[in-house]
Amino acid sequence: MRRTEYPEALRNLIAQLRQMPGVGPRSAERIALWIVQNKADAPEQIANALRSTRESVRPCALCGFFATQELCDICADESRVVDLLCVVEQPTDILPLEKTSAFRGRYHSLGGRISPLDHVGPEDLRIQQLLDRAAKEKFSEIIFALAADVEGEATTNYLVDLLKGKGISLTRIAHGLPAGGGLENADELTLYQALSGRTRL
Amino acid sequence: MRRTEYPEALRNLIAQLRQMPGVGPRSAERIALWIVQNKADAPEQIANALRSTRESVRPCALCGFFATQELCDICADESRVVDLLCVVEQPTDILPLEKTSAFRGRYHSLGGRISPLDHVGPEDLRIQQLLDRAAKEKFSEIIFALAADVEGEATTNYLVDLLKGKGISLTRIAHGLPAGGGLENADELTLYQALSGRTRL
Repeated sequence: MRRTEYPEALRNLIAQLRQMPGVGPRSAERIALWIVQNKADAPEQIANALRSTRESVRPCALCGFFATQELCDICADESRVVDLLCVVEQPTDILPLEKTSAFRGRYHSLGGRISPLDHVGPEDLRIQQLLDRAAKEKFSEIIFALAADVEGEATTNYLVDLLKGKGISLTRIAHGLPAGGGLENADELTLYQALSGRTRL
Repeated sequence: MRRTEYPEALRNLIAQLRQMPGVGPRSAERIALWIVQNKADAPEQIANALRSTRESVRPCALCGFFATQELCDICADESRVVDLLCVVEQPTDILPLEKTSAFRGRYHSLGGRISPLDHVGPEDLRIQQLLDRAAKEKFSEIIFALAADVEGEATTNYLVDLLKGKGISLTRIAHGLPAGGGLENADELTLYQALSGRTRL
């Protein structure tokens, strides 16, 4: 007896949707059925938005953030402080930092961090571009805002070795107790770093 | 100070993706960033699958299940029993029934159930088509497999009134204890229905 299934086009759509992050078999099926049964043109609008975003959004030539021109809004903004640079791992790390309003300089996204286990070496990251910018843009300070884990630390140390002795102040964002976090919930390493990094009152 | 945001195309994509069922603001952002950063052509393939499914998949002219021809695979399958019909609310109810392999007849999807609170009346459902089929296709039995709730029951009763006296045996799927369900987890109504519907051993 032949097993009844959805038409092939629908099964293909479900398989395609499952590639999206966070979309499992059940939600892919639910979204696909919504797409097939939608009476308005919402699905077509999604397909259009998907295509046009793929065509128009690209990495900023300077910092790697999302841009529709050669430069992103941040790099093109002439009101920003020009001698201050913040180095991050991913372009997606930039918006959370922007939301703090604590930084008015520019950014440089590496596109990842050095991770031998994932076969990511220095040559896979935008490190040469960082050195070029450091030579050309006359920064007074470069702030490293990489993850507070082993690979983030190792990448920071690697970059500091390359950039030291050029008269640029090299700093790292503070590691310590997160806001609202009590001591009882903090792990040992966080507490160790919070203690070592204590500031004078 | 101007707030830094994603480029407009990307923000539009996030808004579009949020229309999909089960996709909230966080997952829409995550999917959109995946779409922008994907190095292969997976996003284009999704857009293609979305469009081609919208163009090729339509409701079966007879039963309302998903079809790419005029008739769906089930209605076009000549090996199926022709005098047995199962009435369901939604086309998505058909595959779960097919998976049981307990039914080899054909289906009729109403496209919903009578629900005055949602402004769904009999004229909004595929009821006339059901009556036409009942007059033409010479069913010996029509099985109602609607939801075991007030609106499902009311819709079943409404249809039974329309179809009785035509020499067709009208039946309803059993309501009772779900498989694997203990008595201690069953609600009162389920137990009441399980008791009333008891079968001789």
